[in-house]
Amino acid sequence: VNLISEITGGAKETGRIEAFSDGVFAIAITLLVLDLRVPRELPDGADLTEALLSQWPSYLAFVTSFATILIMWVNHHRLFTLIRRADHGLLLVNGLLLLGITVVPFPTSLLAEYINRPGQHAAAIVYTSVSVFIALFFNALWWYVSYKNRLLDPHADPSAVRGISRSYAFGPALYLLAFALTFVNVTASLLLVLALDLYFALPNRRLGALGRRAS
Amino acid sequence: VNLISEITGGAKETGRIEAFSDGVFAIAITLLVLDLRVPRELPDGADLTEALLSQWPSYLAFVTSFATILIMWVNHHRLFTLIRRADHGLLLVNGLLLLGITVVPFPTSLLAEYINRPGQHAAAIVYTSVSVFIALFFNALWWYVSYKNRLLDPHADPSAVRGISRSYAFGPALYLLAFALTFVNVTASLLLVLALDLYFALPNRRLGALGRRAS
Amino acid sequence: VNLISEITGGAKETGRIEAFSDGVFAIAITLLVLDLRVPRELPDGADLTEALLSQWPSYLAFVTSFATILIMWVNHHRLFTLIRRADHGLLLVNGLLLLGITVVPFPTSLLAEYINRPGQHAAAIVYTSVSVFIALFFNALWWYVSYKNRLLDPHADPSAVRGISRSYAFGPALYLLAFALTFVNVTASLLLVLALDLYFALPNRRLGALGRRAS
Amino acid sequence: VNLISEITGGAKETGRIEAFSDGVFAIAITLLVLDLRVPRELPDGADLTEALLSQWPSYLAFVTSFATILIMWVNHHRLFTLIRRADHGLLLVNGLLLLGITVVPFPTSLLAEYINRPGQHAAAIVYTSVSVFIALFFNALWWYVSYKNRLLDPHADPSAVRGISRSYAFGPALYLLAFALTFVNVTASLLLVLALDLYFALPNRRLGALGRRAS
Repeated sequence: VNLISEITGGAKETGRIEAFSDGVFAIAITLLVLDLRVPRELPDGADLTEALLSQWPSYLAFVTSFATILIMWVNHHRLFTLIRRADHGLLLVNGLLLLGITVVPFPTSLLAEYINRPGQHAAAIVYTSVSVFIALFFNALWWYVSYKNRLLDPHADPSAVRGISRSYAFGPALYLLAFALTFVNVTASLLLVLALDLYFALPNRRLGALGRRAS
Repeated sequence: VNLISEITGGAKETGRIEAFSDGVFAIAITLLVLDLRVPRELPDGADLTEALLSQWPSYLAFVTSFATILIMWVNHHRLFTLIRRADHGLLLVNGLLLLGITVVPFPTSLLAEYINRPGQHAAAIVYTSVSVFIALFFNALWWYVSYKNRLLDPHADPSAVRGISRSYAFGPALYLLAFALTFVNVTASLLLVLALDLYFALPNRRLGALGRRAS
Repeated sequence: VNLISEITGGAKETGRIEAFSDGVFAIAITLLVLDLRVPRELPDGADLTEALLSQWPSYLAFVTSFATILIMWVNHHRLFTLIRRADHGLLLVNGLLLLGITVVPFPTSLLAEYINRPGQHAAAIVYTSVSVFIALFFNALWWYVSYKNRLLDPHADPSAVRGISRSYAFGPALYLLAFALTFVNVTASLLLVLALDLYFALPNRRLGALGRRAS
Repeated sequence: VNLISEITGGAKETGRIEAFSDGVFAIAITLLVLDLRVPRELPDGADLTEALLSQWPSYLAFVTSFATILIMWVNHHRLFTLIRRADHGLLLVNGLLLLGITVVPFPTSLLAEYINRPGQHAAAIVYTSVSVFIALFFNALWWYVSYKNRLLDPHADPSAVRGISRSYAFGPALYLLAFALTFVNVTASLLLVLALDLYFALPNRRLGALGRRAS
């Protein structure tokens, strides 16, 4: 009986949060394709190749949004491999994080549409604000579960936990810096966001070790 | 053999209902972003910042719908932590509850579009009607599973069960009151719905205890 | 080791088919709400209540599609409680069944749009054809798994298996009759489809017994 | 404790990747129906049957996209029955494969719209490019997990593993040939893609044996 409750209980507590979150990530990442439109009713003499190439901002937005959401899913996945228990607060903090993630396609399309045109400053403000929001809630989620190891798996590798705490500590401040940079130089601001996204996508050595845990 | 059937049987009976429901919640909450539109072809002299700010009703509808569906998912999740078995009736009652939940974006957009304009009364009637419908089916679901503890987990904490029964008992009547209030004062009616939504979102002390069960 | 492989193996073999199918059902049923549109830019003097009421065909299509897909999900769920193993053919037959199910919103909207107008005959032909297609593939799925009990759970109740075989045996023929009836009387044809849908939604006594299995 | 960690650990490591991927496949395959449009406001004298028949390219695109994504899901499912462990790289390679899969509806609609019209050459280039991309990432995924059996289930049938390695080895080269053929003859190129898709859909004898493993 103990064995059973440990197996099903252990699986169940974060199981539905992960399933719900996976659903949200999967849908958010798949809806992106709706912004790729087949050119119809081309004006006389227009060429399909040209029409396709002229849509490059929507391809850029598609690939950027896809990569951004994928990186966030990988990070979310990482955190939850260390989380074992769930409570009411976790459901709400995770929900607010998902709010930020479902919004991603909006600022990305906005930026793709207005980059190098009047309005690019407003678009960059929206884009970096959403990045700050997401960074804040990734942090909130992590501190919520790791404070006194409340909701973490008791078997979680302490060095992996410390590694995440360390790498997350400066996240919001750096994204906030990117936000502030939009008032100085839009391009520099976006390059900083890009660099930060890539940094969080790269396999953290300590976390990479997790994958090898079961071997 | 007994052990196996208890593990897989126990997991399976509500597993697919939860997976299906999670899918519906996740999709409903993610589709909301489709209503955030990138302003295109701004009239001469128009500013992107202004164009973005003028879309505030769609942001309000987005955040409200997101919060509403998230709260409902948290409540659904709570109920199902106590449910262990499934039968044909549960599939149908749960299905009707999901019908109400997938509809949420419609009355919310309607209200965001017509608030403070002619038509706000009609919009408020639709909005509160959907709230009544959902409250009714949350209740129906709960009474269906808890009547004589038919489908509940035999190990469910009786005080948690009583706590839900108590807090659900007045839900439909209060949402019905909000519906009736639309004929007197639309603002008061919407504030009541908001207050009720928040009440059901707050962690119930008895339920909060569930999260601590496994520790 | 044997215990483990039986638990994980048993869970895994149909696990992903069910998860994928649940995803498809959940998305198909949630996308329906996209057809409910907020009336915008009402002509002068037009009333929101009137505008909302005039959209009744889209509400009818929404509720009918929702009920149809929900009933199919319940049936799919039922079948898979009896299926334990999976092979390549099952993936393909199930995929073709899902093809029919994702299509459901199309003929339903078509019928809601053209009922009682010229074109209702063509719409009814499309609607009943899709019903025949789905009935055929539900049967194909069932015969595929139950032939010589190939893919069924060895512990499945033989009377439940026989009950499904019996109730499915006449399904395609009856839906085909509804298809033929469209050439005589559209209303009679649609009523027959409705009656058949309800018949397959009602709890089969033998199947109802399944829910009680674990008690 | 060992037993538990093996059960939950074993299930968990690829569990969320599969759940996320299933979500993406399920959504991508279900979104296709949004391209089937109910003809509205028919011009005077126009017949619904004619209007429906004239939409044949969208039906063709729907069925082709559905079949393509279904076949890819079956292949993905197959690979993951042999994979037991996950690491950071697998999340990213799998993510890029999913990028290709979510894009499928776009080149398919493009081809359905422009086939036998000026622009069909450009459409065929896009279509075969996406096929090459997907074939490349299916290969990358497979080599990533099977290189020195790193992430494979230690109990995986070696002949099944070799069978996949053999059948995948020539995939990208053949799809690349189809890409090159578009510059010679569009029809021949598309027929080659079709033949390759069917080849990968057919049950591989060695893999078919997997289904029988548990019997």
